[in-house]
Amino acid sequence: MKLLRYGPAGQEKPGLLDAGGTIRDLSAVVGDIGGAALSPGALAKLRAIDPASLPAVSGQPRLGPCVAGVGKFICIGLNYSDHAAETGNPIPSEPIIFMKATSAITGPDDDVIIPKDSVKTDWEVELGVVIGSTARYVEEKDALAHVAGYCVINDVSERAFQIERQGQWTKGKSADSFGPIGPWLVTADEVADPQNLAMFLEVNGHRYQNGSTRTMIYGVQHLVSYLSRFMSLQPGDVISTGTPPGVGMGQKPQVYLKPGDTMKLGIAGLGEQNQKVRAYTA
Amino acid sequence: MKLLRYGPAGQEKPGLLDAGGTIRDLSAVVGDIGGAALSPGALAKLRAIDPASLPAVSGQPRLGPCVAGVGKFICIGLNYSDHAAETGNPIPSEPIIFMKATSAITGPDDDVIIPKDSVKTDWEVELGVVIGSTARYVEEKDALAHVAGYCVINDVSERAFQIERQGQWTKGKSADSFGPIGPWLVTADEVADPQNLAMFLEVNGHRYQNGSTRTMIYGVQHLVSYLSRFMSLQPGDVISTGTPPGVGMGQKPQVYLKPGDTMKLGIAGLGEQNQKVRAYTA
Repeated sequence: MKLLRYGPAGQEKPGLLDAGGTIRDLSAVVGDIGGAALSPGALAKLRAIDPASLPAVSGQPRLGPCVAGVGKFICIGLNYSDHAAETGNPIPSEPIIFMKATSAITGPDDDVIIPKDSVKTDWEVELGVVIGSTARYVEEKDALAHVAGYCVINDVSERAFQIERQGQWTKGKSADSFGPIGPWLVTADEVADPQNLAMFLEVNGHRYQNGSTRTMIYGVQHLVSYLSRFMSLQPGDVISTGTPPGVGMGQKPQVYLKPGDTMKLGIAGLGEQNQKVRAYTA
Repeated sequence: MKLLRYGPAGQEKPGLLDAGGTIRDLSAVVGDIGGAALSPGALAKLRAIDPASLPAVSGQPRLGPCVAGVGKFICIGLNYSDHAAETGNPIPSEPIIFMKATSAITGPDDDVIIPKDSVKTDWEVELGVVIGSTARYVEEKDALAHVAGYCVINDVSERAFQIERQGQWTKGKSADSFGPIGPWLVTADEVADPQNLAMFLEVNGHRYQNGSTRTMIYGVQHLVSYLSRFMSLQPGDVISTGTPPGVGMGQKPQVYLKPGDTMKLGIAGLGEQNQKVRAYTA
């Protein structure tokens, strides 16, 4: 299934995308696409519904973030060997964990807003992993059972805030609009191999990132198991698993986002995001 | 007002502590003590109620975390000059920001659980700041208007996870039970000066931390303003503002928590926490 949320920001309704590409309204079935709707049991109930029996949504509504009420927005740093190299960092001997503010989360096609005083706003296409059931100290072999599905994430990053303003990356990862999630959550049963997904990101039509989850250093199975040793993973938590090479910081000379730029990014089978970049206005 | 949440974990009800020390049930007045109940307008409505008109709660119920549905659990690192010194770090030239997992939040007297494979679980008494209204790019002079109130926090920390396991402190700050919050949220109008509060922490009756918010490097007003330039602060967000000297890592030799230890910590006017330490069991 492709689960999504549509409608104005803050008033999104739950929906699913049917095989013909029509949004079907799930409001009568679930309250929202959040933790409670993502357990194996809850997903099985959704899967049992004939999409054709659900009301079709007309027009082209805005899409919201595909998960509501995200409790934790966990990120993995430098998780592609070539990306680590382009940033001048060694390959980490175990996964690097940091957090993005959940208030950074927006819809897949919402504007990306350059914060005040920013000079180095950058992009990162990433595979998002959405947790469906609580995970504590799970073994690798059991880890994927806790994954409800996958989605596209743009881990938008302000490099000066992240690196030049007193350590701890969260400072450059958390501005409002820095976490577009979606367009939809594709349930795990429809993703044959999360470690073999092509991914790309373009700015103004130029393809900067062109990679595959195949070159991740630590795969999804390992990451879920690893994370669960340091914190409990809860339904609706989202893990952004790192980015392949081609970020702006890695260009020679470096390239950063400016108002008026457009971004297009996607992952095979998980859909695409399209964002306009604009400056912050009060 | 002293606002609190009481009852079994996950089923807490909202309450307030009256002048005589009796818990009064607020269930008929607010859904919970979370973001929506903490705006200036919502707090004014609660303040207008005569506590004697509310049902008294009998017995000694468990207290839950004093804020429900915390969106972001933001921490400030090395924010007391003497604590920076004891950890061997320089005084930061601007605030260091990191995040704790919101799933680490527990009640003030709940057990603190030492994670598997931990050898360096440590304590940190901290002043907690609870946000009452959205803050973006707020000036220092306006910052305190966004603060609903204050509370005691124990920023429990696993130093090996934090420092020796590939950077980014969140890894050592996020285990379940590592964020006791409470016993109550004291509304800002009852805290005359947040920069002049005595604070302490004892382990097994020995006083290790004995400080005051007076020696913070960056005060609450500055922190709220500063943070609001890097992320929007939302109602119900909690900021843990750093710890004074006396953590276990700073002892010579170092002292870390072990099963059976007890912690008692408090801040003047904000109440006390009492925790037993135990090992993780599945």
